[in-house]
Amino acid sequence: MPLPSDLLDALRAVAGADHVRTDEAALTTYSADALKRGSHEPDAVVLPGDADQVSAVVRLCRAHRVPFVPRGGGTGFTGGSVPVRGGVVISLERMNRILEIDEANLVAVVEPNVVTGQLQKAVERVGLFYPPDPSSLDTCVIGGNVAECAGGPRAFKYGTTKAYVLGLEAVLPNGDIVRTGGKVVKNVVGYDLTHLLVGSEGTLGIITRVILRLVPKPPVQATLRATFGTIEDAAQAVTGIIAHRVVPAALELIDGDSLEAVARYLNVRSLAPEGTAALLLLDVDGLAEAVAEEALRCERACREAGATEVLRAKDERERQELWRVRRELSPSLKTISPIKFNHDVVVPKGRIPQLFHLVERLKREYRLRIPCFGHAGDGNIHVNIMVTPDDDGEMRRAQEAQRVLFEGVVALEGSISGEHGIGFAKADYLPIEVSPETIALMKRVKDAFDPDGLLNPGKIFPG
Amino acid sequence: MPLPSDLLDALRAVAGADHVRTDEAALTTYSADALKRGSHEPDAVVLPGDADQVSAVVRLCRAHRVPFVPRGGGTGFTGGSVPVRGGVVISLERMNRILEIDEANLVAVVEPNVVTGQLQKAVERVGLFYPPDPSSLDTCVIGGNVAECAGGPRAFKYGTTKAYVLGLEAVLPNGDIVRTGGKVVKNVVGYDLTHLLVGSEGTLGIITRVILRLVPKPPVQATLRATFGTIEDAAQAVTGIIAHRVVPAALELIDGDSLEAVARYLNVRSLAPEGTAALLLLDVDGLAEAVAEEALRCERACREAGATEVLRAKDERERQELWRVRRELSPSLKTISPIKFNHDVVVPKGRIPQLFHLVERLKREYRLRIPCFGHAGDGNIHVNIMVTPDDDGEMRRAQEAQRVLFEGVVALEGSISGEHGIGFAKADYLPIEVSPETIALMKRVKDAFDPDGLLNPGKIFPG
Repeated sequence: MPLPSDLLDALRAVAGADHVRTDEAALTTYSADALKRGSHEPDAVVLPGDADQVSAVVRLCRAHRVPFVPRGGGTGFTGGSVPVRGGVVISLERMNRILEIDEANLVAVVEPNVVTGQLQKAVERVGLFYPPDPSSLDTCVIGGNVAECAGGPRAFKYGTTKAYVLGLEAVLPNGDIVRTGGKVVKNVVGYDLTHLLVGSEGTLGIITRVILRLVPKPPVQATLRATFGTIEDAAQAVTGIIAHRVVPAALELIDGDSLEAVARYLNVRSLAPEGTAALLLLDVDGLAEAVAEEALRCERACREAGATEVLRAKDERERQELWRVRRELSPSLKTISPIKFNHDVVVPKGRIPQLFHLVERLKREYRLRIPCFGHAGDGNIHVNIMVTPDDDGEMRRAQEAQRVLFEGVVALEGSISGEHGIGFAKADYLPIEVSPETIALMKRVKDAFDPDGLLNPGKIFPG
Repeated sequence: MPLPSDLLDALRAVAGADHVRTDEAALTTYSADALKRGSHEPDAVVLPGDADQVSAVVRLCRAHRVPFVPRGGGTGFTGGSVPVRGGVVISLERMNRILEIDEANLVAVVEPNVVTGQLQKAVERVGLFYPPDPSSLDTCVIGGNVAECAGGPRAFKYGTTKAYVLGLEAVLPNGDIVRTGGKVVKNVVGYDLTHLLVGSEGTLGIITRVILRLVPKPPVQATLRATFGTIEDAAQAVTGIIAHRVVPAALELIDGDSLEAVARYLNVRSLAPEGTAALLLLDVDGLAEAVAEEALRCERACREAGATEVLRAKDERERQELWRVRRELSPSLKTISPIKFNHDVVVPKGRIPQLFHLVERLKREYRLRIPCFGHAGDGNIHVNIMVTPDDDGEMRRAQEAQRVLFEGVVALEGSISGEHGIGFAKADYLPIEVSPETIALMKRVKDAFDPDGLLNPGKIFPG
């Protein structure tokens, strides 16, 4: 539905005519994110240049009762930035400056559309470190990371995005610009709105500025790779590493099916000893003295758990080589099928074997290919249900399997999403994990921010 | 105002007659917390035994439009558990069990009134570690720590309470029992109600169960003490330690006035070289190899910053001896005056010298004694404005000085509270730090939880 021309004129007056787009190319571009399903075109795309413009755009949309949806890098996996009810997409792409890297106070202040990987490089140039490392770090942006509470391999040691957000500026659905938290690492003044906004998937406010905590960059890293004949052995290694008092910077698990896909993609016979059911990739980091000892302890824990092979990178080149299998996972899975339901379920880490038993059952009962990999230290496993386009039967079986997966994960005291959020893709499954009373409370919180329901409607809550 | 007898009868039916108290002794006991000012008696005290009883008590109070106030250990410094508008105090003291220590998953599940120090001992017996260490850890309780987001010396390396809360059970003001988060370390399903409840000072819900993240206990600790002729030198040492890539487990600063008070209290001539303006107490912990190197680096950073003396504890006995000065601070200050406005302001850590300049000015201009100490790594300094009871002039000057302190801290991009919260003691100062738009949003959040305003009224927001 085209927007009224007076609204369009007003939006152009706010953001500049060049920054209000209604051409078909733009509407298509902003109709989808990395979920690639359920796309929906906006009626217009506005590219504001600062928080005041965002506020003015929000007020205009509100006055016209038109929905508005914030958008960062568009790399989300659950449709968080898809304008499922049309309206105006507010793309923050022009707000992409690093405003400040405060070395003395270990703080960075950034606009929302700074690319995560670029911020990492910028702070590393001055000896600092921004740990969160979602796989999409070369294209995703800090504002989106905050809205989704992005994770990544380093979350095991360093925590997810929320552990680094000290303060926010956000535009509320009523147009108010609020600032929460600040440059200090401790702040207990009033409610923690900062961490309520983190992970709220763009449904409570539009983030226009982020104050991030930084840490000193660990000077040395070591990488190990261990292979196991069973998932149980790999899980035992994870438990053993923790029992040996080591907290690796990354502790990634890749299952046999995923390894086969990568081998096929790289056109090599095999990437691991025959019969490998699980591969662990481990990074330890810190001072040289600690890293040497911690790497030894990790190696010992893996051998004690029955590793069939343990490799340790001797230099940076070998480190990159060991990590290659992890980096090539995503393109490799595309050789199985162009479409996947890539879930990011999480269980208490000791229950990873039970999660894999569940996946084995799903593979068998629903005749599906389900390669799995993920962040073993966090119990956060990417369960990729591969589906063939146009195979309606498989699509149906995949949908049934995903519900059984979610129910099983919750039965294991886990969660249906550790990284990707709910968006619209998983909204119908929210009640599997969250009780009616808690959903009702979440809706009241939503109403406290957005009584008219115009900000990013159709997300999180079942329709 | 006595409660209606039918309400009292109903409360007794819920919690048992022994667990509903209206005797004068009880009303006095539950009228105050560690703030010791502005006490107010409740009309009754109820001691429920489980969440269902808490829910029933809440529903009864609500039906009678009687305020209700949750209470944990009563160790708060801002009056958070004081029933300033009367009504029913809901003391959680009977709910004090450790329900589960899950070693495989590094999780503890506890009832709210488990004493923090007892939980620490229990998890350390199995090689695990619960880092948050408020000074009151032998008497404060986990539920109160969660409600206030308690900190402590170890927050610099390990973070405050919020970094350890994975999930909560809470009774809402409408009587609903909700469960947020869970046993997993990553969870992005719906809004992060867990961390909205953390630090909400008992104004959004009554916490009845807490799921806590644990970490492996660091096997080795080392302690250093360094003295400095100026605050600037001590602050430079803090910066230098970070530049040397060390994150100490504790990095405490004690100023000259505080040292003098401790020396007087312990009846020794001096605790540090003459002319000491600041003393740093440092703990490093971890694997033995790392600890040795990190202690060396800390020592080097202190010497480079101009330390007048650096001591390193050779064994556990010497460690305890070095820490003694910190432990004796609180009783020592009582020898200056029985009453203090003990603020817990926080600034970006590089601005600690400016904070001390401000305190010097307050001492001079308002003729006050203001010993300071605190968590230098976090920029979180306890500024203790000592006041003589019955000296109305000094009391007035102290109140004026505290406003100037808060304004100055906010001008330094700091916060008026890093640990103690707002309660009723600092409610009037909230607008110094938080904008009207943000306060309005916080009030809407409060309304979403508590539309009738019956849960712990008179807190956080200016009257």
